[in-house]
Amino acid sequence: MRRLAIALVHHPVLDRAGAIVTSAVTNLDVHDLSRSARTFGAESFFVTSPIEAQRDLVSAIVGHWKDGSSGKRIPSRKEALEGVRVVANVEEAVASFGGRANVEIWITAARADAGGVALDWDAARARLRSDDPRVVLVLFGTSWGLAPSLCAEADGRLPPITGPTAYNHLSVRAACAITLDRLVAW
Amino acid sequence: MRRLAIALVHHPVLDRAGAIVTSAVTNLDVHDLSRSARTFGAESFFVTSPIEAQRDLVSAIVGHWKDGSSGKRIPSRKEALEGVRVVANVEEAVASFGGRANVEIWITAARADAGGVALDWDAARARLRSDDPRVVLVLFGTSWGLAPSLCAEADGRLPPITGPTAYNHLSVRAACAITLDRLVAW
Repeated sequence: MRRLAIALVHHPVLDRAGAIVTSAVTNLDVHDLSRSARTFGAESFFVTSPIEAQRDLVSAIVGHWKDGSSGKRIPSRKEALEGVRVVANVEEAVASFGGRANVEIWITAARADAGGVALDWDAARARLRSDDPRVVLVLFGTSWGLAPSLCAEADGRLPPITGPTAYNHLSVRAACAITLDRLVAW
Repeated sequence: MRRLAIALVHHPVLDRAGAIVTSAVTNLDVHDLSRSARTFGAESFFVTSPIEAQRDLVSAIVGHWKDGSSGKRIPSRKEALEGVRVVANVEEAVASFGGRANVEIWITAARADAGGVALDWDAARARLRSDDPRVVLVLFGTSWGLAPSLCAEADGRLPPITGPTAYNHLSVRAACAITLDRLVAW
């Protein structure tokens, strides 16, 4: 499997009315996505926020588990949170791999009309197992999803996750878990 | 597909030391599991707690979305939370289907030695699509997992969810999402 990383994006994302906003970080997102990333072999989980106070908050949460008493109490949580990287934006995550040429970016969206180049699950799994040297970075949006600007810049868009019903309003915690399972374990 | 329901169990569950305890309800569990249940066609999501104040809390949260202003603001959340049933224990969930003879109970566990009759994913998917008239009720444990007494009474135990790593400490929100996806959408 190629190197795999995920990012949880808090800006630019859409609000309910379709405006570009910055969402607030949810503590449980940091825990859940780090545990899912660790389970499925994603080497890094980028938490992105342009707001310094939000980045400081995430760093404090992670530090509490990596270096503090909580990590001693529950070592498995420490192990998961060690994969968290706190960055201002997706560009900074990409730069950590040496630049855009070294990264294949896939976006996720609940809507099939979110933009970008559609990539079905079989194709995505095949790409993840190809000998392409680039890191695969999968973006997850908070609030009402990733802004069109991010979708347009991506290399592929994974399908919406649906079951047998027309309902497709999973939490980002559920959607990330299923996405990683479908990409890695199927 | 047969009728499918899920339950999130707050008692009897294990703590880190293996003692039987009652865990506290987490608000986000109620939201996330109801959304996952709705997506994958599970008709009911039972939140079980033997503590009346905890059941009242869950009923208040659900009421806020089903009948209050939040449900008007986000109708998709109202739709998901309408599937929540607040009960004291698994027995009460089972009784709502007319008794134990009408229900096939599957447990979930992160450990392969949790007890009960092992059921692999292919067998579980086949059973879910069989003409057995019983409802399938899948139990998810909070804290450090379902107590042995629940495992022993179940009809089957689903495999632990693992990826390519040895790490298997998913959140119950992630584990429930993946379990429903693997049972229903694979």
